[in-house]
Amino acid sequence: VAGVYVLDQHSDLDHNRSVITYAGSPAGVAEAAFQAIAQAAALIDLEQHVGEHPRIGATDVVPFVPISGVNMADCVSMAQELGARVGEELGLPVYLYEEAATRPERRNLENIRRGQYEALKTAIREDSTRTPDFGPIEVGPAGATVIGARAPLIAYNVYLDTEDVGVAKAVAKAVRHSSGGLRFVKALGMSVEGRAQVSMNLTNFRKTPVFRVVEMIRTEAARYGVNIHSSELVGLIPQEALLESAAWYLQLHDLNSDQVLEQRLAEAAAAQEVETSAV
Amino acid sequence: VAGVYVLDQHSDLDHNRSVITYAGSPAGVAEAAFQAIAQAAALIDLEQHVGEHPRIGATDVVPFVPISGVNMADCVSMAQELGARVGEELGLPVYLYEEAATRPERRNLENIRRGQYEALKTAIREDSTRTPDFGPIEVGPAGATVIGARAPLIAYNVYLDTEDVGVAKAVAKAVRHSSGGLRFVKALGMSVEGRAQVSMNLTNFRKTPVFRVVEMIRTEAARYGVNIHSSELVGLIPQEALLESAAWYLQLHDLNSDQVLEQRLAEAAAAQEVETSAV
Repeated sequence: VAGVYVLDQHSDLDHNRSVITYAGSPAGVAEAAFQAIAQAAALIDLEQHVGEHPRIGATDVVPFVPISGVNMADCVSMAQELGARVGEELGLPVYLYEEAATRPERRNLENIRRGQYEALKTAIREDSTRTPDFGPIEVGPAGATVIGARAPLIAYNVYLDTEDVGVAKAVAKAVRHSSGGLRFVKALGMSVEGRAQVSMNLTNFRKTPVFRVVEMIRTEAARYGVNIHSSELVGLIPQEALLESAAWYLQLHDLNSDQVLEQRLAEAAAAQEVETSAV
Repeated sequence: VAGVYVLDQHSDLDHNRSVITYAGSPAGVAEAAFQAIAQAAALIDLEQHVGEHPRIGATDVVPFVPISGVNMADCVSMAQELGARVGEELGLPVYLYEEAATRPERRNLENIRRGQYEALKTAIREDSTRTPDFGPIEVGPAGATVIGARAPLIAYNVYLDTEDVGVAKAVAKAVRHSSGGLRFVKALGMSVEGRAQVSMNLTNFRKTPVFRVVEMIRTEAARYGVNIHSSELVGLIPQEALLESAAWYLQLHDLNSDQVLEQRLAEAAAAQEVETSAV
């Protein structure tokens, strides 16, 4: 689709699953998603498919993520429109999730995917809580598709200056939401190449910012006499998450993105294009 | 000039001086600078000009600053080429300064501007150390022009949690280059709206980064029992200076600009444009 750019692509043999990240205008991205879902439905037969990662359909899940010039409400609308189109034109059952969910229990992807494709084949007819938001109340060999809207996710790991994985597990437990920690943090303690690591998904960096997570880890690790060794990103991070971290540490209370030279330049270039078009 | 964008413009009545910041391709920016110098020479008569700020010509100084896709050596070449053109086509004496300087003492703008326009009228003929790099060895009513290349300058102020301007003066003295501090820091202590402020120019943020300056101020102020209240930018800051600060505080040792979503997106869009052009 013209104007849609593939930013990242990852396939995993054990998971038997591909993740494709692309960006573009809302209309372009929605059209690309529709074509991808149609193609996957034509190529992938869930009766033949095995893999370690849970899945419910040939296209398992499609999250729209607002990056620039659109907000979450726009992405929810996109999920609703794409869901309706996939249900009608492709005849696939569609569930809306996260910010686009129509029932509280469908915000969480794991609930929708419970029992996977194999269980859904009968549950979709027999269990009214599993009636899809769009499309037929029956599952064919392409399965069902989950479509929704969510904030950008940041995969962020913090290495500790110790070999003791027990410290990483204790710190992970302190910072993650599920055991009483920060609202938008999923965390596990593990050992990576002999070093204790707190491995995280930051699911809403605007509400639970990166710097707050890192400083909480620093405080919790210090209680065991351990320092942070380093951090690493897995995949991409929105620029805003880094600029906000810089502003927080530097105490730049009134930092405005207009003050970033490259952004001012992009705005000036865009304004001149508009001026030129108007002549 | 097409493709050249004015980012900032500042005129000051007391100084009787205008500062215009613009950006674009190297060829575009060089052409814009030439036209600006020609226009200023036609409009401004130094025999009539008064103002508090020292100046040597109708166009006093033109620094080329590398932002993206060019390096300092490119900007030095631009300064040399523009200097030669201004000397030949406009008949103005031109001095090269900072990274483009042809003599060590000409790196510093203040040395070239010594005595201003009024003194230069005779000194240019009588003092061989003041022979220009390009153009005639005589000064007309448009004066002389200083052209060069330098790193982006960041105007950065740190407010302290005290009314005592003496603390700001002591901290400024500790961090600035001229009195033994960091190589690329100019600093003054002053009182702004009743609060002590360390007012700075960071003249090379790649070699003396913002975070190091802020943390040194934090340490020096703590010696007086004073904390940092906040920071502020005056004007623009290169994005790289903020991303490097985020990476330093978050200990993201291997942060690559490829991992910033917006940059990956811009690269993907540019690559697709090239692909399309090649078809």
